[in-house]
Amino acid sequence: MNRFLPRWRFQGMAAILPIFAAASSFAAQPSLMPWPSQIDLKNGTLSLAHPLRVETSGCDGRLAHAIDRFRSQLSVETGDPYRHQDPAAKENAVLTIHCASPGLPVQSVSEDESYALNVDPQGAKLDAPTPLGAMHGLQTLLQLAEWGASGWDIPAVTIQDTPRFAWRGLMIDVSRHFMPLDQLEREIDGMAAVKLNVLHVHLSDDQGFRVESKKAPRLQLLASEGMFYTQEQIRELVAFARERGVRVIPEFDVPGHSTCWTVAYPDLASDTPSPRLVRNQTDQQLPPLDPTNEKVYKLLDDVFGEMARLFPDAYFHIGGDEVDPKYWNKSEHIQAFMKAHDLKDADALQAMFNKRLLAIVTKHGKRMIGWDEILVPELPKESMIQSWRGPKSLAEAAKQGFSTILSAGYYLDLMYPASYHYLIDPLSGDAANLSPEEQKRILGGEAAEWAEYITPENADNRIWPRAAAVAERYWSPASVRDVDSMYARLGRVSTELEFLGLTHRSSQERMLARLAGSAPRDVVMTLAETLEPVKEYERGETHEFDADMPLNQFIDALSPESEGARHFNRLVDHVVSEPQDSVARRDLRRVLQRWRENDALLQPYVSASWPLQSIVAFSAPLSQLGGTGLEALDALENNLVVTAAEHASHLDALKTAETHHSMLQIAVTPGIRKLVEAEKLAR
Amino acid sequence: MNRFLPRWRFQGMAAILPIFAAASSFAAQPSLMPWPSQIDLKNGTLSLAHPLRVETSGCDGRLAHAIDRFRSQLSVETGDPYRHQDPAAKENAVLTIHCASPGLPVQSVSEDESYALNVDPQGAKLDAPTPLGAMHGLQTLLQLAEWGASGWDIPAVTIQDTPRFAWRGLMIDVSRHFMPLDQLEREIDGMAAVKLNVLHVHLSDDQGFRVESKKAPRLQLLASEGMFYTQEQIRELVAFARERGVRVIPEFDVPGHSTCWTVAYPDLASDTPSPRLVRNQTDQQLPPLDPTNEKVYKLLDDVFGEMARLFPDAYFHIGGDEVDPKYWNKSEHIQAFMKAHDLKDADALQAMFNKRLLAIVTKHGKRMIGWDEILVPELPKESMIQSWRGPKSLAEAAKQGFSTILSAGYYLDLMYPASYHYLIDPLSGDAANLSPEEQKRILGGEAAEWAEYITPENADNRIWPRAAAVAERYWSPASVRDVDSMYARLGRVSTELEFLGLTHRSSQERMLARLAGSAPRDVVMTLAETLEPVKEYERGETHEFDADMPLNQFIDALSPESEGARHFNRLVDHVVSEPQDSVARRDLRRVLQRWRENDALLQPYVSASWPLQSIVAFSAPLSQLGGTGLEALDALENNLVVTAAEHASHLDALKTAETHHSMLQIAVTPGIRKLVEAEKLAR
Repeated sequence: MNRFLPRWRFQGMAAILPIFAAASSFAAQPSLMPWPSQIDLKNGTLSLAHPLRVETSGCDGRLAHAIDRFRSQLSVETGDPYRHQDPAAKENAVLTIHCASPGLPVQSVSEDESYALNVDPQGAKLDAPTPLGAMHGLQTLLQLAEWGASGWDIPAVTIQDTPRFAWRGLMIDVSRHFMPLDQLEREIDGMAAVKLNVLHVHLSDDQGFRVESKKAPRLQLLASEGMFYTQEQIRELVAFARERGVRVIPEFDVPGHSTCWTVAYPDLASDTPSPRLVRNQTDQQLPPLDPTNEKVYKLLDDVFGEMARLFPDAYFHIGGDEVDPKYWNKSEHIQAFMKAHDLKDADALQAMFNKRLLAIVTKHGKRMIGWDEILVPELPKESMIQSWRGPKSLAEAAKQGFSTILSAGYYLDLMYPASYHYLIDPLSGDAANLSPEEQKRILGGEAAEWAEYITPENADNRIWPRAAAVAERYWSPASVRDVDSMYARLGRVSTELEFLGLTHRSSQERMLARLAGSAPRDVVMTLAETLEPVKEYERGETHEFDADMPLNQFIDALSPESEGARHFNRLVDHVVSEPQDSVARRDLRRVLQRWRENDALLQPYVSASWPLQSIVAFSAPLSQLGGTGLEALDALENNLVVTAAEHASHLDALKTAETHHSMLQIAVTPGIRKLVEAEKLAR
Repeated sequence: MNRFLPRWRFQGMAAILPIFAAASSFAAQPSLMPWPSQIDLKNGTLSLAHPLRVETSGCDGRLAHAIDRFRSQLSVETGDPYRHQDPAAKENAVLTIHCASPGLPVQSVSEDESYALNVDPQGAKLDAPTPLGAMHGLQTLLQLAEWGASGWDIPAVTIQDTPRFAWRGLMIDVSRHFMPLDQLEREIDGMAAVKLNVLHVHLSDDQGFRVESKKAPRLQLLASEGMFYTQEQIRELVAFARERGVRVIPEFDVPGHSTCWTVAYPDLASDTPSPRLVRNQTDQQLPPLDPTNEKVYKLLDDVFGEMARLFPDAYFHIGGDEVDPKYWNKSEHIQAFMKAHDLKDADALQAMFNKRLLAIVTKHGKRMIGWDEILVPELPKESMIQSWRGPKSLAEAAKQGFSTILSAGYYLDLMYPASYHYLIDPLSGDAANLSPEEQKRILGGEAAEWAEYITPENADNRIWPRAAAVAERYWSPASVRDVDSMYARLGRVSTELEFLGLTHRSSQERMLARLAGSAPRDVVMTLAETLEPVKEYERGETHEFDADMPLNQFIDALSPESEGARHFNRLVDHVVSEPQDSVARRDLRRVLQRWRENDALLQPYVSASWPLQSIVAFSAPLSQLGGTGLEALDALENNLVVTAAEHASHLDALKTAETHHSMLQIAVTPGIRKLVEAEKLAR
């Protein structure tokens, strides 16, 4: 990718979230994401002034629909409906698509997804072993379309592309907060756009069971609060996903995280179960299913059998994570059972449970997947391991002969920036030392969005655009790791995802407008755009989870990653390393001045506004940071020394600004710290 | 409204469209639009921490649905789903709604729409003569909801409210560009939110016939390009509108604007008709229907009869505008007919035609409406006149005894600012001199959105939020005319309309992101936010209408009215009148500096971008305006004199900047002109 050198230009930090600003550097490279295995840009462009005439051969029925979507999406993205133009007209440029063979009736992890694309000014040619590859090629073609010097066109290019990993997933938890069907379908559209191919739906947990069961309707009737997918909807979802080259894997989490099962069937619990679904952290009575109760296996056989027929994919996820051993350890009859069967501890009991589960899942024609807690020596090798606890368990599983995928490091709900997830490689760390054969068992990874703090309103913002960066990690060669290039392309892909119907930007705009209320938006946003939600599990640690609390606060509206803060911190890096750049210094000065003034502008509106009260604790510290930054910048600009007392007061301002309040944190402190650390001290 | 004094604070013009900035002044007044006839704000608030328990009496079935929508809309606007709270819980505050009587089976222009609302900290009471008034009161209640100091609440208030005009309409042309059903429904939601009560759908024109006819299916089969509403969809639309207190009036424009009729039935034309629908301005063969042909009346009787049954409203619009007399004047058989029937000219012929139409429309149980061309002495008084040519014809119609409504001055497609439409009063001008009885015949008005240049993508942006300002004109007392107050409330109502599903902001954001492409968005937007589409009919005059041209240019994306430019021009007003305000001067200086720098930042991206090429002609002039403004500001700030040559060069810069290009114009020249005109010249 070295041929695309950055065209460096700083963005002044705008008063309103500069959400599109990322597009500025790397403007010359195509906004492809994931980046292809091999790409060679040529001279010339293929004009899109007229629709492409498409000729196909060898593909299956999905391709005609994919071409319809390609046309319609091109219309939406370009704003040209081509309404009165015949897409089949003889004089139009031709897009030729050839598949070597049709796809399998049920999409498999082993299907070849590669494709070769050649675009020149006369037309385009797309070759693929399977329709999956052809559909990926169409997405690439769509991403290549851009405004040229005389209208929309596609640059002439030769691409050979094949995924690095076969399992490129996104897990969505629909138990903690239910997500309606149309939203899942929207996510699938987004996944297909960035070549993700597995939607893993976490369908049951302590907060709800989300699929209609005809064998055990108590599950959705008593344990979903009316929010579940009908079987008809699941069939629609699966068909929708298949049309887009995406597999759907259901997860039913047992024997822990199973309050929905025990609310519906109280006698299956290992102890007196909670009489209701878990609403908040004071609901602490969460006994797992009782592995000594034969009725448990009867019910799981019934329900898993039913679900195995509903979800055609070869894999079936049984969860298996975070079982609290205390209920098994304190139960007399379970202890007696363990003694009788020579099970030395809770792990051994769960291993026995999993063996029986595996028999059930296998009987219904599926391969079993579970979270990495199920990995014990006794586990049969047909099982597959999903590692959430870290790369160590991933490597261990592969070493022991299990197929495995990595989710540790890809938890989108932990609010880390795209770059964090982007740089985590499934084959790094312990996995780097595996033999090639062992490494082959690492099939890929899954980004995960747990739903304690997401609702249909902000879910897209929590998933996108960061999932696109993860998608690149799973698809592109390991050497594709340039973070600046990634962000430049991510900004433009993010725009395309909005045209596809995702709402990560538009819903954030609406939520922030709601929070600003009648206060001046530019003043509110000057503060808000420096803020980010706290990371990792800090929200839940400082504020008890409560499913009834409305998710309409700044923490819920603000992106996990502030683009404004990212630009600011980069701007400071640049100014400190090239202090002679007067334009960059001017841009930096303006931002700092604005912050210094902002607290006085915001204060008059705070007392009447509940949401402003929740962020006002950051307002004076930000203005102080502005002042600190200006003093440090003055020193840098004029090559002055500062006194030890001044330097200490600057460090104090930083310390104050680094305090977390209301589950938020100021995200521009790294830049200010860098400025302050560049100060030369008087001796 | 005097109790709501503006809290003046200038918005620095943000680098990105400050679309929410209008909220800053008048922050203390409730964002009600239209403003009620009488309002008395009291102390205290009604908390919305829990859902309101609603008790109704005397209303009809529509109210239960209106309450459901109220609840759901309140959830969307507050971001609080109240998911686990019982809306009927005994301890909740109560909203009592009483209607004196149910509504009429078909909503009538004469139904009483008034209501009385009383809110105090314990609950709310809504009384209305009809469910229409109760529904208006619910919309008021929704607009009153806002963030308070401890969460969402509604201020304690007493409101007595009644509309000034009974006919408060929005006309949408769906012939030039078709609008899908869900979009019309979205517009109806927006209309109901601001108490508009008539949706007038312009269903046929030279570009298409947009309803399924079973009597004459050639109309939709040959003259709609497949884009029309089925009868089932029309019934859905009418029911949807009725539920929201909105009447639906169909318009079928005859005998002119009738290419769709003559494409389907060529032998009904007054001359050899166009073989196809009108696509562009070179299609000049547009003969009207032949009024001497009995088959015309037979077809109209059939189709109008069918449509009269489909649309239950008492009124039926037959268009009647802009008939080109040349076809009638040059036709031998028409001339012979006119001689035989003693018709002295084309107007007389159309009057005869209209008389026969009136008989048809009357036979089918409707009152006929037409555009003001139908107003001739022979026209029977049962007809109603819609004035598009000006207030003169409105007053004339009322004087002659016709019911009438005003659309002149309310054409939203002409790209005027909200304030322009807002200040036009149906009872001003010639109408001011009418007797009270004559004035009573002026039933109200209709905003109109002609669709040569709108598509489903930008239609909302063309209609909203300006239609809300027009709605206030039609509903509120004539004395409510404070433009600053209007804009302050409009900004907040605009946010609410987005929560209702309208896309005037979000689709503009997407369109502008598309246009910026890979250029830095802040640089593009700094220029673009100073631009507005040209006004009145200039676009069509300088660029021939072509229905096939994609509407994806800056002129299509930018709001008719730039909020940034409006704020800038106000800021200059303030600085010139209060030059001692150093904060305002600082804000102004920053904007001007930014403009001065912007051209150099934009230029590197222009050659590769077709859309930037379309606005680059404004870029250097804007930077020059920035420089000019800074020099004028320096002079003002330091009380300097400028030379005649300097002053002349400033006026030159203005002149250059006032040139229109690419159907756009710089909208900040008034502010710069004011600064330059404040210069003191050296003697």
